[in-house]
Amino acid sequence: MKSYCFANNQIISAQKAVLHPMDIGLIRGYGIFDFFRTSNYVPLFLSDYLDRFIRSAAKTRLPLKLSKEELAAVILELIKKNNLKFGGIRMLLTGGVSENHFSPVEGSLFIFCEDLDFPSHEKYEKGVKLLSVEHVRAIADIKTTNYTLPVWHSGDWKSKGAEDVIYHHEELISESSRSNIFMIKNGEIATPDSHILHGITRKRVLEISGKVNVRPIKFEEILAADELFMTSTTKKILPITQIDNFKIGSGKPGSETKLLIEKFKEMEAKSSG
Amino acid sequence: MKSYCFANNQIISAQKAVLHPMDIGLIRGYGIFDFFRTSNYVPLFLSDYLDRFIRSAAKTRLPLKLSKEELAAVILELIKKNNLKFGGIRMLLTGGVSENHFSPVEGSLFIFCEDLDFPSHEKYEKGVKLLSVEHVRAIADIKTTNYTLPVWHSGDWKSKGAEDVIYHHEELISESSRSNIFMIKNGEIATPDSHILHGITRKRVLEISGKVNVRPIKFEEILAADELFMTSTTKKILPITQIDNFKIGSGKPGSETKLLIEKFKEMEAKSSG
Repeated sequence: MKSYCFANNQIISAQKAVLHPMDIGLIRGYGIFDFFRTSNYVPLFLSDYLDRFIRSAAKTRLPLKLSKEELAAVILELIKKNNLKFGGIRMLLTGGVSENHFSPVEGSLFIFCEDLDFPSHEKYEKGVKLLSVEHVRAIADIKTTNYTLPVWHSGDWKSKGAEDVIYHHEELISESSRSNIFMIKNGEIATPDSHILHGITRKRVLEISGKVNVRPIKFEEILAADELFMTSTTKKILPITQIDNFKIGSGKPGSETKLLIEKFKEMEAKSSG
Repeated sequence: MKSYCFANNQIISAQKAVLHPMDIGLIRGYGIFDFFRTSNYVPLFLSDYLDRFIRSAAKTRLPLKLSKEELAAVILELIKKNNLKFGGIRMLLTGGVSENHFSPVEGSLFIFCEDLDFPSHEKYEKGVKLLSVEHVRAIADIKTTNYTLPVWHSGDWKSKGAEDVIYHHEELISESSRSNIFMIKNGEIATPDSHILHGITRKRVLEISGKVNVRPIKFEEILAADELFMTSTTKKILPITQIDNFKIGSGKPGSETKLLIEKFKEMEAKSSG
């Protein structure tokens, strides 16, 4: 956590930010957030992230007092004050302290800056393992703070050599706990569209690959894929080479995935000037 | 919210309780709680609630620093300081401020006292309506703070004349958002056992009725039930007379349900001295 944050409508010391514990953001897990990063001081794809945050607030009926322009101005000031050359920025909006302890009221807006924890170089070289979990996220397309299930699961990931989970339900896959999934088979690149959060990195991959089929994908399909990868703000494009005990493709990151990783790097370099 | 709470390992003014917003209780919705009430200054069925809270902490791997006896002592002191003759008590345990913003660490324990909001007399006289929702709660048997979905839904309840929801999945019902469900048909009393939180009021009803079949219940079964009711700490035993647009039984609270309401009153009177 970096020194300065936005809380209570002003920039203050991040250590001094407080929330009342009776806020339904805590007692009912009712809040939204978004998370993006700076690259050479530039907040990457900021407009997309702000649009999504504003949409999440509207869909959850949480009043957001700052406009897109005002949010952007606060963020630029925080980047400056925190000297955030390469870091993460987390916006949070809570459900508020509600009289009936359930219904959303006017909550609190926070913006924190953080150090980033990218996957190791080795993970990009070897690919990662995901554990399959029979589950489908409720209201997955809104970026709520609801991660109870994956946090609960995550205690097992390390011991099982896994990076994260992959959700599937009624034969179809949806997403990982904080990433989208792409599959490559016989030259086709595909990604699911239902029960997912529409990731900004996913959106960028759709743009740079230019030929993705957005369609339902069966769990058994991904086990037989040539290449598999996950996308997220901090993972960027990360190859997946194992699901449970099944090796994906050759068991090594594939050439198409590597090409997309390169293209994404170029796009990021251009976007951050 | 009553004047005094337990926070930061001491009894303080409830207004002054604070949580750092980067706690994963907020940013990942990872926390547990429990909620019970006092009846004539006696914390009803306290031992059961404390056991469940301690079990929730263990199952979510959240370190709870106070023993059952220590928690009970704090609660009795809070009841005294807040003059809580008839009120609610909420225990909260958060996932903590985690370095990777995901994995649980040592969190914060809070205990708040609240005014109670019982359903109106009219609701017991007429019964209430529930809306059916195709959903099954993940890790329903742990009392986590994960209520994102029902809070999100609840915006619609009032306009649809509904008290709450009833979850069903693959033809079977599980529970309401914060209550258990019981069905009566041809003299049989039944309640489901899977994908539910094991309510303390449910436990009491199992004791006082003495003849409940704990078994899977199909959604279509409850539509054809003679009587239906829900149980929770604040609702006690509340008759359900409508699911969506289907009238249940005669459309009025049934005689068996009324008998159980009376028996529960007697049990509460005995327990609170």
